[in-house]
Amino acid sequence: MDMKTKPSIDDLRIDGPRLWASLMELAAIGATPKGGVCRLTLTDLDKQGRDLVTRWAREAGMTVTIDRIGNGFMRRPGRDNSLPPIMTEPTGGKFDGNYGVLAGIEVVRTLNDHGIQTEAPIEVAFWTNEEGSRFVPVMMGSGVFAKAFTLEHAYAATDTEGKTVQGELERIGYIGPEEPGDHPIGCYFETHIEQGPVLEDNDKTIGVVTGVLGIRWYDCVVTGMEAHAGPTPMALRKDALQVAAALMQEVVACAHRHPPHGRGTVGMVQVFPNSRNVIPGRVKFSIDVRNASDALCDAMDADIRAVAARLSAESGLPIEITPVSAYPAQPFHAECVDAVAKAAERLGYSNMRAVSGAGHDAVYMARLAPAGMIFIPCKDGISHNEIEDAKPEHITAGCNVLLHAMLERAGAV
Amino acid sequence: MDMKTKPSIDDLRIDGPRLWASLMELAAIGATPKGGVCRLTLTDLDKQGRDLVTRWAREAGMTVTIDRIGNGFMRRPGRDNSLPPIMTEPTGGKFDGNYGVLAGIEVVRTLNDHGIQTEAPIEVAFWTNEEGSRFVPVMMGSGVFAKAFTLEHAYAATDTEGKTVQGELERIGYIGPEEPGDHPIGCYFETHIEQGPVLEDNDKTIGVVTGVLGIRWYDCVVTGMEAHAGPTPMALRKDALQVAAALMQEVVACAHRHPPHGRGTVGMVQVFPNSRNVIPGRVKFSIDVRNASDALCDAMDADIRAVAARLSAESGLPIEITPVSAYPAQPFHAECVDAVAKAAERLGYSNMRAVSGAGHDAVYMARLAPAGMIFIPCKDGISHNEIEDAKPEHITAGCNVLLHAMLERAGAV
Repeated sequence: MDMKTKPSIDDLRIDGPRLWASLMELAAIGATPKGGVCRLTLTDLDKQGRDLVTRWAREAGMTVTIDRIGNGFMRRPGRDNSLPPIMTEPTGGKFDGNYGVLAGIEVVRTLNDHGIQTEAPIEVAFWTNEEGSRFVPVMMGSGVFAKAFTLEHAYAATDTEGKTVQGELERIGYIGPEEPGDHPIGCYFETHIEQGPVLEDNDKTIGVVTGVLGIRWYDCVVTGMEAHAGPTPMALRKDALQVAAALMQEVVACAHRHPPHGRGTVGMVQVFPNSRNVIPGRVKFSIDVRNASDALCDAMDADIRAVAARLSAESGLPIEITPVSAYPAQPFHAECVDAVAKAAERLGYSNMRAVSGAGHDAVYMARLAPAGMIFIPCKDGISHNEIEDAKPEHITAGCNVLLHAMLERAGAV
Repeated sequence: MDMKTKPSIDDLRIDGPRLWASLMELAAIGATPKGGVCRLTLTDLDKQGRDLVTRWAREAGMTVTIDRIGNGFMRRPGRDNSLPPIMTEPTGGKFDGNYGVLAGIEVVRTLNDHGIQTEAPIEVAFWTNEEGSRFVPVMMGSGVFAKAFTLEHAYAATDTEGKTVQGELERIGYIGPEEPGDHPIGCYFETHIEQGPVLEDNDKTIGVVTGVLGIRWYDCVVTGMEAHAGPTPMALRKDALQVAAALMQEVVACAHRHPPHGRGTVGMVQVFPNSRNVIPGRVKFSIDVRNASDALCDAMDADIRAVAARLSAESGLPIEITPVSAYPAQPFHAECVDAVAKAAERLGYSNMRAVSGAGHDAVYMARLAPAGMIFIPCKDGISHNEIEDAKPEHITAGCNVLLHAMLERAGAV
C-alpha cells in the first residue's frame, strides 16, 4: 500500500479516476452490447462480481462476512470495535449498486492511503437479489435481514427453471455463517443518482437529502353513459371522460396547493369503449400523490376526495376512488442530514436540500438505523442507465461527500 | 282486397298492427336467440327476406324491378307515370332496414285500402349489401347506383370463403335487367329511429329532420417528456396528459360556443407509456366535431386549433392536430322538410325540428334527389337493437307521417 502523508481531514479527497476505473472494471462483468450490465442474481456472473468486489475489499484490508442469505458486510475496523459500524449500502439499479459498493470501497482505500483511523468501524454492505429479476421477492437479502420474511421463505424461491435460491447460493459459494439481521448498525449513508431534474435545474453538485416522500396510489373510476357521439346533444350527455379530465387536472392542482414537495400524477388512463364516435361511458385512471409527511399526504387525499365529490355532484356522475397502496413518508435522521450538509460545505460543493421522490429502499432501511442520502445530478434530469447518466466529476463529488459524512459519524481518530 | 270507403285525405291512417305483424314476420327470418336478426347479404336467408318482401309488394299491386346489382324498386303506379317516383328508402341497421321497407309497403297497402291514387308513382327501394358484414364495400348497391364505384368492382367482391357478389346474386336469382342508376327519383323520404335522446327528452313523437350534421374527425397528439412521477417536481414537468386533458375539455367547450347543434366528443385516448408512476410523455386522442353547416364546422375547427395553439404556447408542449376524415353537412330539401312538418301537424303528433347527428347514408342519397327524414323516439335515448328500442305507437306514428309526406309530394288525385 502506498502510504501518503497524512493530510488534515478537511483536505482529504477520494481518488476519482481510481473509483471510475473500478466501476468500469466491475461493469465489464456481464456487459451488454448496448452499454448496460446484466448480472442476474446468483448466476456465475453474479459470483464473478461478488468475488471481484470482496477481493478488492480484502486487498483494502477489510474483513468480509457473509450471512446465510448471502448478504455481504465488508468491514474496516475502527479504534473501538464495540461500536456499531457506520455503513454505506447500495440500493437501486445495477450500476447504482456498483456505485454504492465501490464508493464505499473507495472511501476505505482513501482512509488507508492517508493512514486515517476511525473511532467506529466502517462497513460496506451488499444485499442479495435486490432487483428481483430472477427471483422474487425483490430486496430479498435486506428483507430477510430486516425480518420482513423468513430465511426459509427466501431459500425456497425458484427461478423460471425451478432452481432455488438456496441451491444457487450453495453453488456459487455464498452461504455464510452469520444469522441475517444479527448485525448492529450505527448509521447508514447512501450515495445515489438523483433520477430527477432538480439538481441540474438548480445547477448544484450535491443534494442533501432530507427524507423520502410518502406515496399514495389510487385507482379512480368515473361512470357516465355510453352514447353515440352524433345523435346526442351536449346538454343530454353523461360524458365520463370530461369529468375524468377535470379531476385529472385537479390532481395536479392539488399538488400545487401543497407546496413545496406535493406531487400529483395521472400516469395511466383507460377509456371505455374507447371508440372515436362514442361518448365514453366509463374512464379508469391512476392517481399518484406524494408529499414530505404523512399529514401532508392525508391533506392531499382529503383535498382530492373533496374535489371529486364536488365534480360528482355537479355532473351527476359517480366517481369512485380506491386506494391501491401507500408508503409512509420517511424523514432522514437529523444528524445524518447534517453530516451530509457539513461534508458538502467543507468540500466546497454547491449544494441544496432535496427530497427523494422515489426510493422505498431507503425508507425501509431508515427504520433500522439513522440514515442519510447524498444525491448527485442526473444528466438531462432523467436516468435511463443509472451511473452512465452521471458525470465522472459528480461521481467523485458524491464519493467525497460520502467519505466526509462517514468520517463525521465514525469519528476520525 | 277489402276496399274501404274513401276517407278524406286528412283522416287517412296506416294500419299499425298490420305493420307490426309484418315487421315481426320478416324479423323471424334469420332470428337470433338473443332477439336480433342476422341475414347476411346474398345468403339463403337474404333471399328468403327478399322473396317475402317482393311477394308482399306484388300482393299490394306493385311492380318489382331489380337492377344488375340486385337493388329492388317496388313501384305503385301514379296517374302520370312519366313523373319520377316519390321514393322511400331504408338505411341503417337490420331492423331499421325492415322498418323502412315495410313502412313503405304499409303506405301502399293503406292507399290501396282506401282507393287513393297519386299523381306521381310511389316506390319503395331496397339496396344490396348495405351493412357490409359479408362483402365490402359497404352500401354497395346504393354506391353502384350513385356511380361511386363500378358494377364490375362490386361484382368482384368476395366473402371470406372466396364467393363473389356476382356468383351469389346469380345463385339467389337477384340479378335484374335494369342498369343501376338508370332510375330517376322525384324525392326521398326515410323514417328512422332517432338513435339519440332528444325526442324522448322533449317528450315529442315526431322529429322533423332538417338536415344531417357535418362531421370532422381528427387525431390529436400532445408530446411532453416522460419522467418518473416521484423525483420530478411539479414545476419541472412536461406532462402531456395535463395539456391533453385541458384540450379535451376545450373540445366540449367549443361545442357549447357553437350552439344549438355544435357537438364535440373525445372518444378515444391513448397514454404513453401508460404507467402508474410515470409522467405521460405522449398522449394521442380523437376529436369528433359536428355542426349543422360546413361553415360552422369550419368555425369549430378554427376555434379548437386556436385553443390548441394557446395551450401549446402556455405549456411549451407541441400539439399536433391531424384531420382523419370529414363529411359535409347536408341540409334537407325545404319542400321535403315542410312536407314532414305538415304531415305531423295534420296528424296531431307532438313534433319538433331536429337534426340528424349520424347518418351519412342520408347525406349520400340527398345528393341524388330532394330528401327528408322522419325521426321517431328511441327508448332511453339510446338504440341497441334498432326497431326493438322503439315503441309500437311511435312506429305507427312514423309510418303515418311517411304516408302523408309522400302523399303531399306525390299528390293525391
